[in-house]
Amino acid sequence: MNNKVKLTFLGGVGEIGKNMTAIEYENEIIVIDAGLTFPDDELPGVDIVIPDISYLLANKDKVKAILLTHGHEDHIGGLPFVLAQLNVPVYGSRLTLALVENKMKEHPNVKFKGISVKPRNILKLGSFTVEFIKVNHSIAGALAFCITTPAGNIVHTGDFKVDYEPIDGEMIDLPRLGEIGKRGVNLLLCESTNVCRKGFTMSEKSVGRELDELIKTHANNRIIIATFASNIYRLQQILNLAEKYKRKVAFTGRSMINVSEVAYKLGELKYDRNNIIDISQVDKCDDKEVLIMTTGSQGEPMSALTRMASGEFKQLKLRSNDLIILSASPIPGNEKNVYKVINALYKLGADVIYDELADVHVSGHACQEELKLMHSLVKPKFFIPVHGEYRHLKVHKELAMTLGKEERNIIIPSLGMQVELSPNSIKQAGFVTAGQRLVDGIGIGDMDSNVLRERKQLAEDGFCVVCVNINNVAGNVTGEPFIITRGVVYADEQEAFVQDAKATIIASLKEQELRDAEPAVIKQSIRRNLSNFIFKRTKRRPMILTIVTLD
Amino acid sequence: MNNKVKLTFLGGVGEIGKNMTAIEYENEIIVIDAGLTFPDDELPGVDIVIPDISYLLANKDKVKAILLTHGHEDHIGGLPFVLAQLNVPVYGSRLTLALVENKMKEHPNVKFKGISVKPRNILKLGSFTVEFIKVNHSIAGALAFCITTPAGNIVHTGDFKVDYEPIDGEMIDLPRLGEIGKRGVNLLLCESTNVCRKGFTMSEKSVGRELDELIKTHANNRIIIATFASNIYRLQQILNLAEKYKRKVAFTGRSMINVSEVAYKLGELKYDRNNIIDISQVDKCDDKEVLIMTTGSQGEPMSALTRMASGEFKQLKLRSNDLIILSASPIPGNEKNVYKVINALYKLGADVIYDELADVHVSGHACQEELKLMHSLVKPKFFIPVHGEYRHLKVHKELAMTLGKEERNIIIPSLGMQVELSPNSIKQAGFVTAGQRLVDGIGIGDMDSNVLRERKQLAEDGFCVVCVNINNVAGNVTGEPFIITRGVVYADEQEAFVQDAKATIIASLKEQELRDAEPAVIKQSIRRNLSNFIFKRTKRRPMILTIVTLD
Repeated sequence: MNNKVKLTFLGGVGEIGKNMTAIEYENEIIVIDAGLTFPDDELPGVDIVIPDISYLLANKDKVKAILLTHGHEDHIGGLPFVLAQLNVPVYGSRLTLALVENKMKEHPNVKFKGISVKPRNILKLGSFTVEFIKVNHSIAGALAFCITTPAGNIVHTGDFKVDYEPIDGEMIDLPRLGEIGKRGVNLLLCESTNVCRKGFTMSEKSVGRELDELIKTHANNRIIIATFASNIYRLQQILNLAEKYKRKVAFTGRSMINVSEVAYKLGELKYDRNNIIDISQVDKCDDKEVLIMTTGSQGEPMSALTRMASGEFKQLKLRSNDLIILSASPIPGNEKNVYKVINALYKLGADVIYDELADVHVSGHACQEELKLMHSLVKPKFFIPVHGEYRHLKVHKELAMTLGKEERNIIIPSLGMQVELSPNSIKQAGFVTAGQRLVDGIGIGDMDSNVLRERKQLAEDGFCVVCVNINNVAGNVTGEPFIITRGVVYADEQEAFVQDAKATIIASLKEQELRDAEPAVIKQSIRRNLSNFIFKRTKRRPMILTIVTLD
Repeated sequence: MNNKVKLTFLGGVGEIGKNMTAIEYENEIIVIDAGLTFPDDELPGVDIVIPDISYLLANKDKVKAILLTHGHEDHIGGLPFVLAQLNVPVYGSRLTLALVENKMKEHPNVKFKGISVKPRNILKLGSFTVEFIKVNHSIAGALAFCITTPAGNIVHTGDFKVDYEPIDGEMIDLPRLGEIGKRGVNLLLCESTNVCRKGFTMSEKSVGRELDELIKTHANNRIIIATFASNIYRLQQILNLAEKYKRKVAFTGRSMINVSEVAYKLGELKYDRNNIIDISQVDKCDDKEVLIMTTGSQGEPMSALTRMASGEFKQLKLRSNDLIILSASPIPGNEKNVYKVINALYKLGADVIYDELADVHVSGHACQEELKLMHSLVKPKFFIPVHGEYRHLKVHKELAMTLGKEERNIIIPSLGMQVELSPNSIKQAGFVTAGQRLVDGIGIGDMDSNVLRERKQLAEDGFCVVCVNINNVAGNVTGEPFIITRGVVYADEQEAFVQDAKATIIASLKEQELRDAEPAVIKQSIRRNLSNFIFKRTKRRPMILTIVTLD
């Protein structure tokens, strides 16, 4: 009997974001997560980045289901694009599916069939049996999976932390993980986000205690709290504190309004609807009677908080009696935007509290001691670190080795890697097409596209268009060359620059070159001469486009 | 008698970088520091940013001297540009001036007259008397100033920390600061970089101890340490450890080679020249016999370490027996670049240690307790926080208030602000022209320039050029419109896109519009129609340039 199972890593390994792993046995594939990531400055003008699913499309008939660990964008955000090409049922917790459903509203033509599951539920999917296990994370409804396969049990932790004081009263199911470990786990796939951090991640409840203190000591201030809308636990604590201190709550920011509504309907977020007011009513209340919950904790340019900071948020004008709490840490890469917003808020005279000044945020990911706890309970034969940059996966491997795991029983995955697992062995088994697909406007393009290179060059050096009309019989330039530049010279130098550029072009187009010359040859000559002229003048090499017309 | 002194803030307040403050009495001005900063993504293609010194140029005859606190780029980097317009003597410590001199080599036409000073030296500059005070910082030769003026004593801390175990044996001159405080200080200008951090900054020596441990336990590895070249103390400790563990040292990276040479000649850096080898000789040595000191700790794209990580550094190929230590923290904004380099180093099989994993770096700036110590020793009547983003200045103000200073005796400065100080009063006194000057290629331009806006638009959406030839008597388009795009559509969609765009243009140019029409009107119409067409097709709004020629 064939007892080999193949894992294919399509995202979330070697870079953060767009998590996706496929587990395959003969003609059955189940997929874990379908995330997206947001592009950095290397990809100007790109909106989102999703996994390349060529491998799944080539094996379309095998794919039986997508299983979601939790509802964060880096785990569910690619789903609309994946489902558009691959219509399979999607399993996840109630909240996870509700967030997906909300997202699918923007993709009305894509079919979505969600099937909700609960912790300890057991699901049979062909040759696979999946048990769902409760974990703590910075969003409700987060699950780990224990997948029974012909190659043995595979545990996938999803994103997790160990919270001994969980807001919903439900701790990560450590006893069950222990039982499964005792029964025997062949392979552990464990997240690696905080593997560089020593110790334990603090409980979500510690944030509530800090916020309680802040709200108490700012009894006369209007209070605005910015946080991640998907962190239902944070929202719940803030709503409880609003009730405790008799403040009405206004939600603002699209995702804050959406998530608070979705989670309320599911019963994941509990509050008295009579205590909620519209943002437009805030001005009618006393400062000490309101608490505003907003998006924008990452300094996102179009978010509610950023617009408040720049005075462009019509429904709410900030004043010196406002206390703004950023209950979040900047995600790497967002620091500058976050600090810009904080500086702007301070300049409005408001008071600002953020993670450098008070303990108003905790991570949702396991630190070193929690990871050790997971390894110790699950006691896997083989280990694959997932969810992290390469450095995280490497450090996680070293952590597993300090716990006694042998190096040959650990594989660091990379994008597109396939791993073959049997009850007694694990090995790399080549690579399949994988990578990132860029979603730009409405098109899904290709990483290597010229478009990005062109945009980068334009951003660095601008461009110059030159039109020259030539009589290639007489061998002269007719009329004046026409030159436009953008992003090359400053306004007050523009006129002199254009005059000199024209002179350069005319001087360089010697008569002998023009008579009977091919436009392509003339173009080449113009480009070379103009480029040298511009470089001498500006030390820049803008993109040059030449248009040669013949009389 | 006039006892009013005016301070003008030309940099370093409200944003990090390009520090510059002018102190003025009647027809005398002394300037403290002349820094630069590096642009962020908001300024594509800009090389460096320096202070706008219009105010100093308008008062050219008054300016008597520039005093430098220390040799970091954000304090001396603007000097070549300032001296080109304002030739005055420059005072600073020997190392500071040596670093400036090195920099001036790239500006052979700018005159530079440096006069070196030592701690406790007293310098008479017209109505001002300046005493130089030793402070600890992440560079040797750092000074604070006590400036005696007709309005009383002004203490400017420069950048500092309190290091009880200084590498050069010279502690910050706390006794002298205490004496000056006892004599009476009217105004304190104090740096604010680490004001959000609790406690004390660790001693530079703690880094040495950690590096010692790492080098000891990696006795058989080749070791490469990346750090800030200007941190002479760090360099000294690493050189000492190399000697202790019998490793030859190779310097690599332009600033590392420059600074190690300059500092050696001054006697600020002490090492046995026989122990130094050229990077090209490294391959001839045993791994355990070499230690390479390199630049690139910030993941700078062209630095030695980044090129090693990408395999593009010809003199040194990394291998799995290499230990790379990044003895630095990422400066905000550099995180992604640093992590990219770390990931690439790991992928080469090398071992990597960085600040998240071990205590291989300490800050050069005072934390809260050290700032409190400074305030307590200097006991100023008035206080102005400097050197920081607005949020830092704000928190520093609050810190001073917790120490008992009244709010009315503190001023938060902003760019261009003038402050009038007399023995018994301090007040804002308006604003002068100030801001940032962008150095781009070889030109010094203006912040608000269209050039930057254009580059940003080009980076986001690309551009499209369309040339149309029109017979405005017959009222028709002659020939085909000519269209070029860059950064708009993907290669495989290009042909269809251009065909449809042409059709759109021709269809939209109705006969009646063309007959006798002005080219400007036709252009407008083309631009509008083409823009709508492109938006429908790509959801982008590229820059559109239209060229209309008439038959």
